[in-house]
Amino acid sequence: MPNPTAAMLVIGDEILSGRTRDANMHFLSGELTKTGIDLQEVRIVSDKTSAIVDAVNALRADYDTVITSGGIGPTHDDITADAIAAAFGVSIDVRDDARALLQAHYDRQGSELNTARLRMARIPDGATLIDNPVSVAPGFTLGNVHVMAGVPSVFQAMVASVLPALTGGAPLLSQTLRIQRGEGDIAGPLGELAQEFDDLQIGSYPYQKDGVYGANIVIRGSDSARLNAAMTKLSGLFPA
Amino acid sequence: MPNPTAAMLVIGDEILSGRTRDANMHFLSGELTKTGIDLQEVRIVSDKTSAIVDAVNALRADYDTVITSGGIGPTHDDITADAIAAAFGVSIDVRDDARALLQAHYDRQGSELNTARLRMARIPDGATLIDNPVSVAPGFTLGNVHVMAGVPSVFQAMVASVLPALTGGAPLLSQTLRIQRGEGDIAGPLGELAQEFDDLQIGSYPYQKDGVYGANIVIRGSDSARLNAAMTKLSGLFPA
Repeated sequence: MPNPTAAMLVIGDEILSGRTRDANMHFLSGELTKTGIDLQEVRIVSDKTSAIVDAVNALRADYDTVITSGGIGPTHDDITADAIAAAFGVSIDVRDDARALLQAHYDRQGSELNTARLRMARIPDGATLIDNPVSVAPGFTLGNVHVMAGVPSVFQAMVASVLPALTGGAPLLSQTLRIQRGEGDIAGPLGELAQEFDDLQIGSYPYQKDGVYGANIVIRGSDSARLNAAMTKLSGLFPA
Repeated sequence: MPNPTAAMLVIGDEILSGRTRDANMHFLSGELTKTGIDLQEVRIVSDKTSAIVDAVNALRADYDTVITSGGIGPTHDDITADAIAAAFGVSIDVRDDARALLQAHYDRQGSELNTARLRMARIPDGATLIDNPVSVAPGFTLGNVHVMAGVPSVFQAMVASVLPALTGGAPLLSQTLRIQRGEGDIAGPLGELAQEFDDLQIGSYPYQKDGVYGANIVIRGSDSARLNAAMTKLSGLFPA
């Protein structure tokens, strides 16, 4: 049985402008791979309602699970919750349980739950909350879409909250062989190996460092015996 | 007049699996911002023909320029050139000028232009070549789609080859103010500022470090006088 599939949607003007380098995608891809869920697509869109709506609707139709990051804070550019509600065609308003979480948090801090902060209690109809042990303001799950914060520490905590509920397949294992020869020298035998082991994914990731060409050959699959067999054959083809 | 728009398509199993952290997107976003071209969307898809074809066709219809990275090497998993040809509905074959470039290069190196390497001379009908001063094997431009290598040093060289031909708008300028207060405390006045300066983009990027909450407020626009005016007002609202 093929592994469940996932897509990620990053709502991130700051990444598209080059100001920030994404960290959440890299974290999530590693976690999903360990869980046996295939991350098959990532989209990064800007803070525009239409861009978010279109991307969410395309991805939730195509993949088993969608995880979004960013845009659920209290400022004017935090429009993700409203966009998700629009994508699903449901209404959205401040919800009592989310408001209670925030009220208790700001009471403890001695801060005011002002209008801006109350935006973070806006939850689309029918969603369930995602626990946020870092900064309280919750994410939410609607259908197969999990909506999380963009701040990496909060995003990671929310992934940890959701991941156990996602049923993964067998974890994807990988082995890597670094070959210090140009891809053009190894491509022929490598292609034959990929045909022989067509139940595995064999990828060639070239590098060039100080004028020396090489490639990391990564073999992925969930059957460790097959993985070992392919790696043994690969090492034999290209002895160090 | 609004700035020209761009999208990037990363063909990258190795990024989706979490093995590699993307570098090309971060580089390209910075270069495009300097040039006055708005990078509005990035998609990362796996090494599957249908995924590449669908993404290229969606992006080239929606944006002025599309830049792809990855999948144009000599190995079995390098399928980008064929996928681009399929997306445009044109044929693809080894082209004489590309073959001549490779032949001269491998002659100089004393290597053989074998079948695998010859794959890198497969160019879709009607494309123009993109110069690759690093490792010779060319990228290509077809319509508004620029197809480049995934190895960062080669990708960067190809971007440098193409960028002067892309007509940008006024470079996007930005100024940042770091405010050591939670977003919830600043969101109200910030939203009003964003309304007053609605010709600028004002983004709030929260952070949380050692339990302290803050936000970087980034103001972007191409009119430096307006930018200065907004930043002056912002600094007045939230004195350090």
